[in-house]
Amino acid sequence: MHFQEILFKKRDRQELTSEEIRFFVDQYTKGDIPDYQVSALLMAIYLNGLTIDETVRLTDAMLHSGIVVDLANVEGIKVDKHSTGGVGDKTSLIIAPICAALGVPVPMISGRGLGHTGGTLDKLESIPGFNVKLSLERYRQQVKELNCCLIGQTKEIAPADKKMYALRDVTCTVENKSLISASIMSKKLAEGIDALVLDVKTGSGAFMKSQQQAEELARLMISIGRKMGKEVTALITDMNQPLGSYVGNSLEVIESVNLLKGSSLPEQYDLLELSVLLASHMVVLGGKSEDLESAGQQVQKVIDDGSAFEKLKKIVEKQGGDPSSLDDYSKLPTATEKYQVKAARKGFVAKLDALLVGKSAVFLGAGRLVLDSKLDPGVGIVIRKKVGDEVNRGDLMMEVYYNKQDQLKKALPYLNEALVLSENPVSPLTLVKNTFD
Amino acid sequence: MHFQEILFKKRDRQELTSEEIRFFVDQYTKGDIPDYQVSALLMAIYLNGLTIDETVRLTDAMLHSGIVVDLANVEGIKVDKHSTGGVGDKTSLIIAPICAALGVPVPMISGRGLGHTGGTLDKLESIPGFNVKLSLERYRQQVKELNCCLIGQTKEIAPADKKMYALRDVTCTVENKSLISASIMSKKLAEGIDALVLDVKTGSGAFMKSQQQAEELARLMISIGRKMGKEVTALITDMNQPLGSYVGNSLEVIESVNLLKGSSLPEQYDLLELSVLLASHMVVLGGKSEDLESAGQQVQKVIDDGSAFEKLKKIVEKQGGDPSSLDDYSKLPTATEKYQVKAARKGFVAKLDALLVGKSAVFLGAGRLVLDSKLDPGVGIVIRKKVGDEVNRGDLMMEVYYNKQDQLKKALPYLNEALVLSENPVSPLTLVKNTFD
Repeated sequence: MHFQEILFKKRDRQELTSEEIRFFVDQYTKGDIPDYQVSALLMAIYLNGLTIDETVRLTDAMLHSGIVVDLANVEGIKVDKHSTGGVGDKTSLIIAPICAALGVPVPMISGRGLGHTGGTLDKLESIPGFNVKLSLERYRQQVKELNCCLIGQTKEIAPADKKMYALRDVTCTVENKSLISASIMSKKLAEGIDALVLDVKTGSGAFMKSQQQAEELARLMISIGRKMGKEVTALITDMNQPLGSYVGNSLEVIESVNLLKGSSLPEQYDLLELSVLLASHMVVLGGKSEDLESAGQQVQKVIDDGSAFEKLKKIVEKQGGDPSSLDDYSKLPTATEKYQVKAARKGFVAKLDALLVGKSAVFLGAGRLVLDSKLDPGVGIVIRKKVGDEVNRGDLMMEVYYNKQDQLKKALPYLNEALVLSENPVSPLTLVKNTFD
Repeated sequence: MHFQEILFKKRDRQELTSEEIRFFVDQYTKGDIPDYQVSALLMAIYLNGLTIDETVRLTDAMLHSGIVVDLANVEGIKVDKHSTGGVGDKTSLIIAPICAALGVPVPMISGRGLGHTGGTLDKLESIPGFNVKLSLERYRQQVKELNCCLIGQTKEIAPADKKMYALRDVTCTVENKSLISASIMSKKLAEGIDALVLDVKTGSGAFMKSQQQAEELARLMISIGRKMGKEVTALITDMNQPLGSYVGNSLEVIESVNLLKGSSLPEQYDLLELSVLLASHMVVLGGKSEDLESAGQQVQKVIDDGSAFEKLKKIVEKQGGDPSSLDDYSKLPTATEKYQVKAARKGFVAKLDALLVGKSAVFLGAGRLVLDSKLDPGVGIVIRKKVGDEVNRGDLMMEVYYNKQDQLKKALPYLNEALVLSENPVSPLTLVKNTFD
């Protein structure tokens, strides 16, 4: 088999066989096919598309380019959640300990912030000492012991995806639903899961701008998961404004912990609602509840009795972090300076653009401008009013936590553009737009 | 300007500006954009196409990636011919000295064999001592002195094309009419010509399999040429069977010289007809004749009086070759062995597939199987019967000139498959299918 035959076929809109896809993924991972040939194939895939079957084959080939973790010795139905990425989305930090406390094993391999979106690993690393770089053996042991482990992708997990993603990033071939699905699903399936809840974001701060795009992506990932014998539920949720009210790494840890302690603020209603819903779906998939309603009650119970928070502290401790920092937030990195954004006039919040808030956070140092940017874990934005809220002139809208004046100066114009006030009343945004299960 | 913006635009079917195209061509030529990004752009161009204006911009950028030869000090209208490539097509060797003898300067920069097709440079180099690697300064002087110089592409001529062509070759992005046109026209316009005759081949042995494809390519190249202020005439000609009767490097030199000496065989009727026609168009474009008919008479005259052949000998001598080899063919490289293909039964030649004959010649050593293959200049195939000819059982159909038994063994199956006999009479092929002027 020659790589060029594969390239000719896809260029000419023919369907690739399992053997052809496996050949190209394996040879590329090994370094036997040069980047310049694979980038041509990626563009041909981007423009001509892949069928569902081809996408399943690609996922399978990428999955098997590395190790698929065997969690057979962990009792129970292993369930994970994956979000396609957003701003202020810290649900992983909340629902992983909730589900683990309810006896649902959560083997979670997460990623870092990408562009204007945050990443679970970056948030976890703002906890002093927290180590996301565990070996797969330690990961397996901890899932068995605590029902949960929170680590980053190791080099054994889907190495083909790592290599291909880097190439897609520089060849304008990221935004293709087959390539996105295969990338996500190959990594998730490598974790050793039995079931998966997908949180597919849509809106200004999401990679899928329209609900239709998000639903197509969700349906494709569900098809892949099911063809690989996994249960998959997908929610289509709003990402037009940041989720919850804290954006920034240690800030999002604080917001998550507050929520697990049962103390959430009105402006965090969407984070609370989505966290309970995602966790409930996981509890149902995990076989610990018959329906969403009773699952929701169980979720509320482990928040109220503190067992979910205790589970998080155990996970943090086990992974080298300082659990006392979750009670004494002064032990978490914090920014030294604070800037207040106030309402210039009376009105209603019509827009709080997630993309612009996310970009603003990046300029503050919460995200990466270039691949090897060093993050500032303490900086971020606290949102005090959300879309639909009525405000008076001078009301506190946002607080910016920053360390460097020049970073604030770059970040502020984005924040100012993000916030739009209307004279007329505005309805709050619908959080969950659709559910596929 | 960033290369990725250009890539995004073409991926999304937007038109690229002159500045964008010039940026990418210049930066790529300089080595400032990596192959893996340009190959993605080439695939996007292949699949989404370029407008005529974009193709003109690309041609112009590639042309100006190197030197455009200034032939202002050569009197007369400088005319060249370009063929899109075929099997047995040695017209350049015939028409260049004819036109030069008639006072039309022919500045000709040619290529090598590509795949199953032959190349003028490979043929010329079978003449002992002939040097195709002259500097552009010597080229300019010789065009002035002899009205003709026959060289290969130097590194100063359209370096962007050289680099892009190599990349297209390994990324399945060769067969796109905009990329083909820009590649051909950028090199031809760099020669310093005022006018150009295009011989666009169609049929099994051509890169353009259908007449429609060939005509689209011809029209596009005419548009480019005219937008760059050059006169362009295009012929669409048959390449379903080899042109003339000799295929192979020194064999094609012999056939060309025989024709210039006025002695052509019946099976060479198509080569004679096409050579006279192409030369006549060049004479008209060169301002030496009012119409094709009188131009044809002039062409015939310089064949009959030997002045075209004398011109070729002078060119050969000037470029270091041995002119006596054109009178004494034993001084040309020749194969030691000969194999005769005879008719297995009575009938009419229905097919003599140019692609298969070309491939057969490659296996004999007349062409390249890999980039750095060393050619065997003496090997080849002499065709004794052409499509439409009536044959009896045992008639000599082809003679194979070879040096190595294993090469003959690989070549023969292609030749046997190339020849198809019919019981019913078959019409000869139409040579010239269309003319655009």
